[in-house]
Amino acid sequence: MGELERLADRMREFAQARDWERFHTPKNLAMALAGEVGELVAEFQWLTPAESSTLDEEATARVRAELGDVTAYLVRLADLLGVDLVRAAHDKLDESERRYDPGLYRGSARKAPPL
Amino acid sequence: MGELERLADRMREFAQARDWERFHTPKNLAMALAGEVGELVAEFQWLTPAESSTLDEEATARVRAELGDVTAYLVRLADLLGVDLVRAAHDKLDESERRYDPGLYRGSARKAPPL
Amino acid sequence: MGELERLADRMREFAQARDWERFHTPKNLAMALAGEVGELVAEFQWLTPAESSTLDEEATARVRAELGDVTAYLVRLADLLGVDLVRAAHDKLDESERRYDPGLYRGSARKAPPL
Amino acid sequence: MGELERLADRMREFAQARDWERFHTPKNLAMALAGEVGELVAEFQWLTPAESSTLDEEATARVRAELGDVTAYLVRLADLLGVDLVRAAHDKLDESERRYDPGLYRGSARKAPPL
Repeated sequence: MGELERLADRMREFAQARDWERFHTPKNLAMALAGEVGELVAEFQWLTPAESSTLDEEATARVRAELGDVTAYLVRLADLLGVDLVRAAHDKLDESERRYDPGLYRGSARKAPPL
Repeated sequence: MGELERLADRMREFAQARDWERFHTPKNLAMALAGEVGELVAEFQWLTPAESSTLDEEATARVRAELGDVTAYLVRLADLLGVDLVRAAHDKLDESERRYDPGLYRGSARKAPPL
Repeated sequence: MGELERLADRMREFAQARDWERFHTPKNLAMALAGEVGELVAEFQWLTPAESSTLDEEATARVRAELGDVTAYLVRLADLLGVDLVRAAHDKLDESERRYDPGLYRGSARKAPPL
Repeated sequence: MGELERLADRMREFAQARDWERFHTPKNLAMALAGEVGELVAEFQWLTPAESSTLDEEATARVRAELGDVTAYLVRLADLLGVDLVRAAHDKLDESERRYDPGLYRGSARKAPPL
C-alpha cells in the first residue's frame, strides 16, 4: 500500500471514530484546505525570498506543521473524490512539458514559470 | 523510491530544464499553492454540500486537474524545505488523536472537527 | 474624503510610524490578504450553508474581526497600487451585468452565479 | 449614502434580478472571496518584491480587475452579515496600535509587521 493510501485510510478512521464524516464533504474539505494554505502563506508573507529559503529551526517547524495539515486535508479530499493525487500531478506535468518547450523557454525571464 | 519522491524529482528536473529554479523560492511556491487552492475552491463555491459529493464527469475532471496542480506545488515546496509531507501529516494526526478523544467527541455536533 | 481613503491614510501612518513600509510590497500584501481570507474561510468551513447564515454573537464577532483584517490589507494594497477599489468593483459589475442578462439567467439552477 | 453602501445595494440588486440570492450564503461568499484572492495572488507569485511594486499597464489592469472582484464579494458578504467593513478595520487597527507601540517596534527587523 502506498504511503498516501495509508494516510487516507488513517484520515478516514480518524473521522469515523468521531462520527465526523458528515462534516467532510468535498465542499468543506476544499475550504479547510484553503484555511490551512492561508496559514502556510502567513508564515512567509513578511519574509524576503532569500529569508524564505533560509528558515531557522523554529520557523521550519511551524511551516512543517502547516504542510502536514495541508497534506492531510488534500489526501482526505482526494480520497472522497476518488482522485489519485500523484497521477493527477504527473498528468499536469505532462501538459506543462508539452506546452513549455525548454528550447523556447529556457532562461526566459519574460515568461513566468507556470506549472 | 516512494511516489512523492519521484514526483519531487520530476518537478526539480522540469524547473532545471527551463532554468526556472530562481522562481521557485518557498515564498513564491507558497503563493502558487494559494493560487491553485483558490481555483480548487472556486469549483465548489456555488455547489451545495450534496452537489459537491456528486460531481459529474466534467466537474470531476476539472477538480482533478486542480488537485494535480496543488499536489505538484506542494511536493515542490516540501522538497525545497526538506519536509516529509506524509510524516508531517501523520504527526499532526497524532496530535489531533490525542486532543480529540473519540469518547468525548464522538457525534458531538457542538464541537466542529478540526484536523 | 471618502471612508476608504481615510482608512488608507491610517494604514499608511500605522506603517510609517513603525518603519514597516518596506514590508508592504504589493507581493507581501497580496499574501497577507490570502492569509486573512484563509482565517475567514476557516470560520465557515464546518458550518452548513444555513448555519453560516445564522451565526451566534461570538461567531459573528470572530468573523467581523477577520473581515476587518481583510479590509485593512485590501485597502493598503489598493492604495499602493493606485487602484480605486469601489470603481474597480463597479466596473466588474458592469461586465457581469452585460454578460448575464437577467432574462436568460433568472432562476437558472444550471448556470452558477459568477460575479 | 457611503460608497460601500451603494456598492452593496448594487450587488444585492444584481443577485435579486437573476434570482441568485440562494447561492449567496455567507459560506459560499467566503469561498468566492478565497477564489478571487487566489487569482490576485497568482498575479504576483513569480514576481520579485520590486517587480510587484512596478507593474506595467497590462499587469495593473489585471490586478485591478481581481481587486474589483475581491471588493465586490467582500462587500456582499459583509452586507449579508450586517458588518461595517470600515468600522471593523478601524477596530483592528486600534488593537494593533495598542499592541505594537512605535517606540518599541520602530525599525525592528526582528518583529515582522502584523496588522
